[in-house]
Amino acid sequence: MTQSQFPSFHMTPDAFRRHGYAVIDWIADYMERVEQYPVLSQVQPGQIRAGLPIDPPQQGEPFDAILADVEPLIMPGVTHWQSPNFFAFFPANASGPAILGDLLSSGLGVQGMLWATSPAATELESHVLDWLVEMLGLPAAFKSTASGGGVIQDTASSAVLTAVLAGRERATRFASNLTGCDGRLVAYTSSQAHSSVEKAVKIAGIGSEHLRLIAVDENFAMRPDALAQQIAADRAAGLVPCFVCATVGTTSSNAMDPVRAIGEICRAEGVWFHVDAAMSGTAALCPEFRYLQDGLELADSYAFNPHKWMFTNFDCDCFWVADRASLIQTLSILPEYLKNQATESGAVFDYRDWHIPLGRRFRALKLWFVIRHYGVEGLRHHVRRHVELAQQFAGWVQADPRFELAAPAPLNLVCFRLRAGDEANRRLLEQLNRSGELYLTHTVLDGHYTLRLSVGQTWTEERHVERAWQRIRETVDGDR
Amino acid sequence: MTQSQFPSFHMTPDAFRRHGYAVIDWIADYMERVEQYPVLSQVQPGQIRAGLPIDPPQQGEPFDAILADVEPLIMPGVTHWQSPNFFAFFPANASGPAILGDLLSSGLGVQGMLWATSPAATELESHVLDWLVEMLGLPAAFKSTASGGGVIQDTASSAVLTAVLAGRERATRFASNLTGCDGRLVAYTSSQAHSSVEKAVKIAGIGSEHLRLIAVDENFAMRPDALAQQIAADRAAGLVPCFVCATVGTTSSNAMDPVRAIGEICRAEGVWFHVDAAMSGTAALCPEFRYLQDGLELADSYAFNPHKWMFTNFDCDCFWVADRASLIQTLSILPEYLKNQATESGAVFDYRDWHIPLGRRFRALKLWFVIRHYGVEGLRHHVRRHVELAQQFAGWVQADPRFELAAPAPLNLVCFRLRAGDEANRRLLEQLNRSGELYLTHTVLDGHYTLRLSVGQTWTEERHVERAWQRIRETVDGDR
Repeated sequence: MTQSQFPSFHMTPDAFRRHGYAVIDWIADYMERVEQYPVLSQVQPGQIRAGLPIDPPQQGEPFDAILADVEPLIMPGVTHWQSPNFFAFFPANASGPAILGDLLSSGLGVQGMLWATSPAATELESHVLDWLVEMLGLPAAFKSTASGGGVIQDTASSAVLTAVLAGRERATRFASNLTGCDGRLVAYTSSQAHSSVEKAVKIAGIGSEHLRLIAVDENFAMRPDALAQQIAADRAAGLVPCFVCATVGTTSSNAMDPVRAIGEICRAEGVWFHVDAAMSGTAALCPEFRYLQDGLELADSYAFNPHKWMFTNFDCDCFWVADRASLIQTLSILPEYLKNQATESGAVFDYRDWHIPLGRRFRALKLWFVIRHYGVEGLRHHVRRHVELAQQFAGWVQADPRFELAAPAPLNLVCFRLRAGDEANRRLLEQLNRSGELYLTHTVLDGHYTLRLSVGQTWTEERHVERAWQRIRETVDGDR
Repeated sequence: MTQSQFPSFHMTPDAFRRHGYAVIDWIADYMERVEQYPVLSQVQPGQIRAGLPIDPPQQGEPFDAILADVEPLIMPGVTHWQSPNFFAFFPANASGPAILGDLLSSGLGVQGMLWATSPAATELESHVLDWLVEMLGLPAAFKSTASGGGVIQDTASSAVLTAVLAGRERATRFASNLTGCDGRLVAYTSSQAHSSVEKAVKIAGIGSEHLRLIAVDENFAMRPDALAQQIAADRAAGLVPCFVCATVGTTSSNAMDPVRAIGEICRAEGVWFHVDAAMSGTAALCPEFRYLQDGLELADSYAFNPHKWMFTNFDCDCFWVADRASLIQTLSILPEYLKNQATESGAVFDYRDWHIPLGRRFRALKLWFVIRHYGVEGLRHHVRRHVELAQQFAGWVQADPRFELAAPAPLNLVCFRLRAGDEANRRLLEQLNRSGELYLTHTVLDGHYTLRLSVGQTWTEERHVERAWQRIRETVDGDR
């Protein structure tokens, strides 16, 4: 296709080249200057919209003008997840190879709903997820070459929903309508688990009040004895346990549920066992942290997010099952217009049957790029470095008599607070975030307002964590 | 942050600039040469995986080497959705401004789950979806400034699931557990509707056998009288109708359900009414096609996909509701670690409550770029051109006595077949697709195997459609 053949209004390949360079430059500049922005956006509700024209443009505009609007119109409303001073929530770290792999995926523009609609999209995904089984020391059954297999989902929320559905269907013999189990299905997770478990249980029609939030121990980890007791009580009441979710690294405090003990209960009870390691799963790249997932061979499904702590931009949640047949039976529907020889041969995976959406982009490219760019060695280096920095911070907290650690810090998240009480901690957090110099978030542990410092942003180095601690102390000093 | 400060293993901003240009060039080259590839990938199952190393790399590799592997290792397994000779399924068209908007989103790397986690991501999304209400002539109630609002979802499958859940919850008074409605909830769509409706009804626990597939008329459009009868029969049997989905442009044949007549029934019955216009919704950019959505003000929710026919790369499904409170009540859960002042003020939208996943990327950027680059005028131009080309093709089919049209072709999809019977049509399709020169898919209408030619790829021009028709006739000639 020559340039002159490109129809009107479209951006020609030559123009794409020119404008593409400009966007690449924009991002490279952003990487260099990201520290200069306030980490947490300082705008008020409605402020960004107020800067935008009320009516859509009737005529097209030059691309340069559109790109030039990003800085004044959009950037004031951006909270900088890619700042090295971002210590809030969990990281959503990105990297050059991930961004460029994703760009290539956009450029190819394939839709991988079926193997046939782009075999490479499916096969690279299966392959890279098999690589990750090796890289993370996951159970061999999770491999696509065994009984299981992995798939990329958008988020850990969608992954846990998929797992809940598979558990529900296995318990109801794939009836899809909860027949005979209305109000009798029960699901279990700890009181510290992520809200997505409750959301999934609601979506699946099991009902929030039939999600048992199992008590935790002094480290905020699920108590297997309490789980076993609750399951027994529910069975005695005629209810039908169908799903248990354990967490390797809770969002609130990075608590580690005992996977093996919970898995043994699930195995004995015949209940679907899902393990959510959305952030902390990345730590298993390093053999010294694999003890945290001991017992994972008892899990029916497992998820972790390279888009949190493995330098792969959103969205990229990796979800594995030990028995792919159950998953496919839960979600598969084959209308005439999707039938094709490859599907009928049974020799291929059609990933549309592995998650909620039908359509899917070629997300494996970015993961392939990241793994090859860093190598296992490079990824391990950064995981270890982030854990070291968090441990250093935890040490400073412990050494300062005004502060206390609020929970164990096994990896890269530190939960801490002033001993001076909730109001002091609430004020401290607000002052820190309003400064724009760093961004932390909070949780409540044992009824007390608690600050969280999560280390995992791509560009975070020792000096940023040091500066965070300095700023925290200065703020407390200034507040007296 | 200066270059020397960038930690080891990461791609520095300067390296990102260099490699980023290379990927941009790769995509521009691809746009120019996409016609040279066989449209449908010719690989066998397992062939792509066989070219990949069994073990993950321990050491990192140079980016140039990774990018150089794409052509030999990946491209043979790509089916070229961006080829102007792609006439299969529905289009998934992309464009320069969309790809670059998405690239910017990857570079910013913000996670817009809450307003506070990047106000611009939320506000630009609300704003652009309000623009689209104007651009498409949608009901004013869908605007975020009225009682409704729009949100970007990944796919129309997820959108219809969200709608089913809102309908289920409204019918069960937001019980989330189908209490008292076990096996009694019923959903309705036409026998020609997309498989995602059945998938959603299964996921929601309503059960496939409680999805009524309403009979269609001679144009494959839902019969409102049959819907009304079925609802009456179900009510008489003590069942609880909770959801109806009409389609503006079915996947199989682009059939148009009568929105107003169905909407009036839903309104009278108090049943949630969702309208799925995944591909054909784009046509409403042109006032002359809006008659197809007449009655949309009766809908509770509506979805169309800019990632199908509006030059916006996957994923971008736009979903609107007339009453956002029902949607938010269906999906909202607020754990401590997500609490923040903006949310508590009630002055902002937190889009995590508008769909299944929690995390979300800044997808509004690409839509904003597309709308500004093309303007309403440019988008209309291409929609009209695609419809013209399809109508031209339909005319050629009708003029050839060996062929017949299998359904009306109101827009850009033509369903046609040889009069010679199923086997001849099956053979024709296989020969065409194996040639690599074009890619069509099939459906079954009135029990007969039918070919589908969908016009909507970004680079498709008159000469491609002419060549497709020529190739089809030559293949039939050669097959005698």
